[in-house]
Amino acid sequence: MAGGAPAGTVSESMRHEERPSSCRQECCGLYHRAVELVGKRWTGAILLVLLEGPLRFSEVRQLVPDLSDRLLSERMKELEAEGIVERRVLDGVPVGVEYELTDKGRALEPTVRALKAWAQQWLA
Amino acid sequence: MAGGAPAGTVSESMRHEERPSSCRQECCGLYHRAVELVGKRWTGAILLVLLEGPLRFSEVRQLVPDLSDRLLSERMKELEAEGIVERRVLDGVPVGVEYELTDKGRALEPTVRALKAWAQQWLA
Repeated sequence: MAGGAPAGTVSESMRHEERPSSCRQECCGLYHRAVELVGKRWTGAILLVLLEGPLRFSEVRQLVPDLSDRLLSERMKELEAEGIVERRVLDGVPVGVEYELTDKGRALEPTVRALKAWAQQWLA
Repeated sequence: MAGGAPAGTVSESMRHEERPSSCRQECCGLYHRAVELVGKRWTGAILLVLLEGPLRFSEVRQLVPDLSDRLLSERMKELEAEGIVERRVLDGVPVGVEYELTDKGRALEPTVRALKAWAQQWLA
């Protein structure tokens, strides 16, 4: 099934040599932080809708179903603190607040697009 | 700053027309489920280390620091139930159990790689 290599001590020890655990481990810290950040409940959805352009608070609410004002406000503050989203007060009547991805936030586009494509192919 | 378009009612209403909210919303369900699944605490890290090839339980533990046996076991069961990871009992002494990504799991590689690259560029 796995290619016909003989099972046993030799191939087992070879396979273990092929696994550079220290190299794998090095990358984990930053990546793990990224997963915790982007994978937080609602954060992924907020990033997805902001990729199309800046949105007002109420527009994000509309585009992300089941998200409460309180939670959206909390997530936006976290994303601002991480430098992923920028908050802008708009002139005009009525005065509004708009949220836009920063360069750091827009750099998440390949991740978001890849996950969306995966979801459509494998979860549909 | 944003290109010199005149501020006011017309450009504001045009911008709103450019926002196809119903289209944006359609995609949210599956994508949101994917974020919840992959973004769950430790799941992203487990997927990352399994992308390099199958691993025994103890090897995953070693490669994902701070992950307890209990939690790893729980995550593996969830990933198996989702069809993302396959569990295989190995012949030999000592008898072992190996975990491997399925096609559905391997299809997450672009997402994982993109997020890892983002983390290394923006969180380092």
